[in-house]
Amino acid sequence: MKQKKTLSIVGLGLIGGCYAKTLRDEFDMIYGIDLDKKALSYAESEGIINKGFVDPKIPLSESDLIVICLYPNLVEKFIEKNKNNFKPNAVITDVVGVKGDLIDKIMKKLPSNIDFVGAHPMAGREVQGVWNSNEKIFSGANFIITPHPLNRNENLDLIEKLAYKMGFKMVSRITPKKHDEIISFTSQLSHAIAVALVNSDEKNFDTNVFIGDSYRDLTRIAMINEDLWDKLFMVNRENLIKKIENFEESLDIIKKSLKEGDSESLKEEFRKSTMRRKEIS
Amino acid sequence: MKQKKTLSIVGLGLIGGCYAKTLRDEFDMIYGIDLDKKALSYAESEGIINKGFVDPKIPLSESDLIVICLYPNLVEKFIEKNKNNFKPNAVITDVVGVKGDLIDKIMKKLPSNIDFVGAHPMAGREVQGVWNSNEKIFSGANFIITPHPLNRNENLDLIEKLAYKMGFKMVSRITPKKHDEIISFTSQLSHAIAVALVNSDEKNFDTNVFIGDSYRDLTRIAMINEDLWDKLFMVNRENLIKKIENFEESLDIIKKSLKEGDSESLKEEFRKSTMRRKEIS
Repeated sequence: MKQKKTLSIVGLGLIGGCYAKTLRDEFDMIYGIDLDKKALSYAESEGIINKGFVDPKIPLSESDLIVICLYPNLVEKFIEKNKNNFKPNAVITDVVGVKGDLIDKIMKKLPSNIDFVGAHPMAGREVQGVWNSNEKIFSGANFIITPHPLNRNENLDLIEKLAYKMGFKMVSRITPKKHDEIISFTSQLSHAIAVALVNSDEKNFDTNVFIGDSYRDLTRIAMINEDLWDKLFMVNRENLIKKIENFEESLDIIKKSLKEGDSESLKEEFRKSTMRRKEIS
Repeated sequence: MKQKKTLSIVGLGLIGGCYAKTLRDEFDMIYGIDLDKKALSYAESEGIINKGFVDPKIPLSESDLIVICLYPNLVEKFIEKNKNNFKPNAVITDVVGVKGDLIDKIMKKLPSNIDFVGAHPMAGREVQGVWNSNEKIFSGANFIITPHPLNRNENLDLIEKLAYKMGFKMVSRITPKKHDEIISFTSQLSHAIAVALVNSDEKNFDTNVFIGDSYRDLTRIAMINEDLWDKLFMVNRENLIKKIENFEESLDIIKKSLKEGDSESLKEEFRKSTMRRKEIS
C-alpha cells in the first residue's frame, strides 16, 4: 500500500464505517462522504475518518481508493455525476449485494484510467448507521469479487488483499451473473424465508415466551431494511423466484411425509440436511 | 428444597447433563441412570452426578425428584416398567418437546401418591451427549410446564422454582394441547424450514464460500437428530402441517410480489416482519 495513501468512503453507514475501521492502518488519510452531517461529525470525533465531506469533489480528487457504500440504485448515479472528479488511476469499488449489469454499465462510463472493481462483503447486521459499525462484523466472513474483463489484475489483487486485511476469511472471484445466481440462494432466499416465517405467525399467543433458539436464529434477519432489500430482491427477481420454487419443492417433501405418516421419507430428508450442513463451517 | 434431597436423571445425554449441572446445589445426591456406561463414568468422574446406575431400581426408590430425559416414545415405557419402583410422594418430570396424550396416559398408570409434571425446557444444541452439556444452554431460555388436572399445585410450583434455578428466564404454564400447537409453530416449523432450505441447495457451487450469517443462522438446526425429530414431527403432524401451510401462504405473497414486480406489496411484507420481529427479544 506504499502508493495508495488516501481512501474515500462514500456513504458512511454501517458498512462504510466497517471499511473505515478495518482499513485504518492501510491508509494515511480516510475521508468520509455523506449527506448526513451527524454521521460525518460522529465519525470524525471517534477517529473513524480523518475528515468528512458533504460535497464529494475534493476528497474524490485526492483519493487512490474509493469505496462506494450507497444503495444499489445510487451507485451508478454517483459515478455518472462524478466521473470527471476521480484522481487518475484511482480504483473504485462497491458493496452492492446484487450486481445485475451494474459493473458493465459503470465501466463503460468511466475514463479508461479509472478502474471499478465490483465487490460484495457478505456481512451485515440488523442495525444501521456508522454508530453500529464494528471490526467484528467482517471477521471470518466471506467476500466476493466480481471481475470485469476490463479490470486491471493489480486492482483485483489490491481489493483481494484489502479484504483479507479487513478480516474476511475467504475471498472468491466469480462473474456478476454467477454471483447473482448464488446470492439469490445463499442470502436472498434466507431473507425471504425469515420474513415469511414471522409473517405466518397467527399471533394467537405471546410468541416471545414460547420460542427457543431456533426461531430466534431463523428470524433475526426478518428485521429488514425495506428500501434496500426491495431493490436487491427486484433486481434479482428471476433468480430468486427460481430458488423459492426449489425450496418449496423441498418443503413439500416434508409436508407429504407428514401427511402420509412416512417416517422413512422424513428421516431421509433429515439425514440429507444433516450431512450437507456438516460441510458448512 | 429441605425435603427433596435426591435427584435421579434418567437418560444422561445433553439435556440430562444440563439438568444435573444446573441443579447441583439443590440436591444432596444426584443419580444418573443410563444404559451407556461411558456416559455414567464420565459424569461420575466430572462430578456431574454422584453415582451412575444401569438398573434404575435402587436410585428410583431413593429419589424425591426424577427427571426423565429419554426419547419421546420411551418415556411411557420407562414409567410403565418402573411404576412400582418410585419412592412414595416422588415427583417425576420430563423434557419431551411434544406432549400429545403422554401426560394423561402416564397419570393414569401411576399410583396416586406419585405425581408427574410435564415440562419442556426450550433449549438444545446440535450436539449430543453429556460431554456437551453446559450450564449456559439453559440460561435465558423459555421453559413450559403443561399441568394436568390431577397434578398437585406444590409440585407444579416446585418444577417452576427449579426451572428458574436452572437459569431459565420465563416459565409458562399451558395445557398439553395448546403447548403442542404453539410448539409446532415456534420450534418444529423452524426445523422443517431449515431442513428444506439446506436440501434445496442445487449444489452447483461451493456453498460454504458464498454464505453470510443469514444462511449460517437459518440452517444451523438442519443438523438434526433424525430419530428424535421424526418422533416429534409425527406425534404433532396435524399441527405442523397447518403451520407449514400458513408459512407457504406468507412465502407466496413474497413470490407473487416478485413475479409482478410489485415493490409496494413486498415492502409491506418487510415492514410487517420488521415490526413483529422487534417485539421478540
